[in-house]
Amino acid sequence: MCGWRGKNKACYNSKMMLQPRLLITMGDVAGIGPEIIARAWAELCALCRPVVVGDSVWMSRALELVGGKARIRSIDQPGQMEASAESIPCLPGSKQKLDGVKPGRVSAEAGLAAYEFLCTAIDLTMAGEADAIVTCPLHKEGLRAARLPYPGHTEILAERTGSHDFGMALYAKSPDLPLGLAVVHVTLHMGLAEVFGHLSVKAIFEKIRLLDALMQRLQGGRPRLGVAALNPHAADGGLFGDEEARLILPAVRQAQDSGFDVTGPWPSDTLFVRARKGEFDGIVAMYHDQGHIPMKLLGGLHAVNISVGLPLVRTSVAHGTAYDIAGKGIADPASLVEAARVAAMLVE
Amino acid sequence: MCGWRGKNKACYNSKMMLQPRLLITMGDVAGIGPEIIARAWAELCALCRPVVVGDSVWMSRALELVGGKARIRSIDQPGQMEASAESIPCLPGSKQKLDGVKPGRVSAEAGLAAYEFLCTAIDLTMAGEADAIVTCPLHKEGLRAARLPYPGHTEILAERTGSHDFGMALYAKSPDLPLGLAVVHVTLHMGLAEVFGHLSVKAIFEKIRLLDALMQRLQGGRPRLGVAALNPHAADGGLFGDEEARLILPAVRQAQDSGFDVTGPWPSDTLFVRARKGEFDGIVAMYHDQGHIPMKLLGGLHAVNISVGLPLVRTSVAHGTAYDIAGKGIADPASLVEAARVAAMLVE
Repeated sequence: MCGWRGKNKACYNSKMMLQPRLLITMGDVAGIGPEIIARAWAELCALCRPVVVGDSVWMSRALELVGGKARIRSIDQPGQMEASAESIPCLPGSKQKLDGVKPGRVSAEAGLAAYEFLCTAIDLTMAGEADAIVTCPLHKEGLRAARLPYPGHTEILAERTGSHDFGMALYAKSPDLPLGLAVVHVTLHMGLAEVFGHLSVKAIFEKIRLLDALMQRLQGGRPRLGVAALNPHAADGGLFGDEEARLILPAVRQAQDSGFDVTGPWPSDTLFVRARKGEFDGIVAMYHDQGHIPMKLLGGLHAVNISVGLPLVRTSVAHGTAYDIAGKGIADPASLVEAARVAAMLVE
Repeated sequence: MCGWRGKNKACYNSKMMLQPRLLITMGDVAGIGPEIIARAWAELCALCRPVVVGDSVWMSRALELVGGKARIRSIDQPGQMEASAESIPCLPGSKQKLDGVKPGRVSAEAGLAAYEFLCTAIDLTMAGEADAIVTCPLHKEGLRAARLPYPGHTEILAERTGSHDFGMALYAKSPDLPLGLAVVHVTLHMGLAEVFGHLSVKAIFEKIRLLDALMQRLQGGRPRLGVAALNPHAADGGLFGDEEARLILPAVRQAQDSGFDVTGPWPSDTLFVRARKGEFDGIVAMYHDQGHIPMKLLGGLHAVNISVGLPLVRTSVAHGTAYDIAGKGIADPASLVEAARVAAMLVE
């Protein structure tokens, strides 16, 4: 048996050995996860050495759905066999029975399985059995149905790796953003009314630091960062709120003093227009929609999520389970391919 | 003397008589208002019968700045003379002395003058001396320096016309939005923390009604409207806030019952992607940046502001005074031309 950790290097040619070992988690099987993996498989194999962590029966159905010719090989550990365009190594990662799950329907079974696929991938990566994780979407209501108190992937990853200063970056290199742009959010999965209690000089500074580190890895050199204001017109000199003067500006100054190339707070409606022109490599957003509205417009299916502040590399598609089209074989796998490409870059 | 109200029709050819009479207010003279009027003048004359309400000395300087050849004609009332590419009728509208004002600098004088230009234009339009107002940007700190307690044009217009259910739409017909898209905001010029106290079923319903009326006038027929959620993922089934279930959904249902073609609340990050695809004619946004971030990206200099719920037609450029480039003669007048074009459409 060939070990993925390179114990038996003669099994691989040198190109293969250089490619990063990525675990692709299937996410919620009732969503589009299985079918985008099936459609992207050949492209994934060209980018990395992929292993699917998920259910082999759902993987098989997805292949059939998209007319894929590859064969699924159930394995017990990542290094058991090498992936190729013809062979999909699939590691179960969960003992949930998923026969009763229907495409496009919330279920506790699919929710729990998605959680367990992810936990398996985290444990294997932390143990050095893989280089990075690329996740397909899970469904928050599925998690809730399974009584799992997590709003999303990021919080599961942080808890399981014991991380405290972590975050999620949305990154895209697209026709609108040819140089690439990353957005890190100070707050993410919470009601807008809760945002105010989570903003602090420390939290904003920390996200500037994480964004700087991420973009150094992705682009090399010191990135040019912009910090978004919370209020319209960046509070217009204090007319519309005080968070800019009280929290954001002190954090920006502290970061400037620490040597970061960062400016702000900038009015968020013009900040992204400037970013599109190439003025910034990264933006710190104060809340979910402030970063997601522009990035979904500018990045489209090129957008990917990247965890920051974790002891492992993890990227993700930037879309949801798309229950409305799940099981139809029409989902576009572009974001998954892009997520694998970015994960491979970060590992290298 | 030829009357603008058509008392002496023999003065005009029939094409001129059909063109709407637009008052172009200069805004804060220290901003780019004067120079964008100067650069756009010939185009404005092709779209409408324009009269500048502003300072003739600043108008003259702006013409010099952009190498304009037209001559300024000071007038006391709108109908005193007809505009042409060669002649700019300029109505003072304010007795402020503006000799000491410097381009790009906040001043009480320019702030007060901008307010008075607007008041003059409102009074003339309400008296039937003009068909509509097109405004160049004022500067909120200039208003504040003049001890005028208004956050912007909209509130001055509402107060002076005695309007209660009013709002501001951001509209663009651009390469990204070939069919045109309007966004009306339920809340606008206030700190984000104040938004929550201003959202109600009544306020949201009212904005749906205003948006429907606007788009009927601009496009004809019943427009397809989408209402944005306040919280990320439209609260994700109540995980991230309750405003969707408590306020937005009831308002949408009430509007559906009243015959409007409206759906929502939709997650705001994907709503604008769908709007770009042509799925909606108008969107109701909950707060300033939610609508402004996507519209500045999608509309660019094609974006214009339109007052809704007022007894007069008023459009505006969708950018600010741009103090950083004021007085350099490099400001792009595209949004002003577009604002005049839309005002002319609304009058017709």
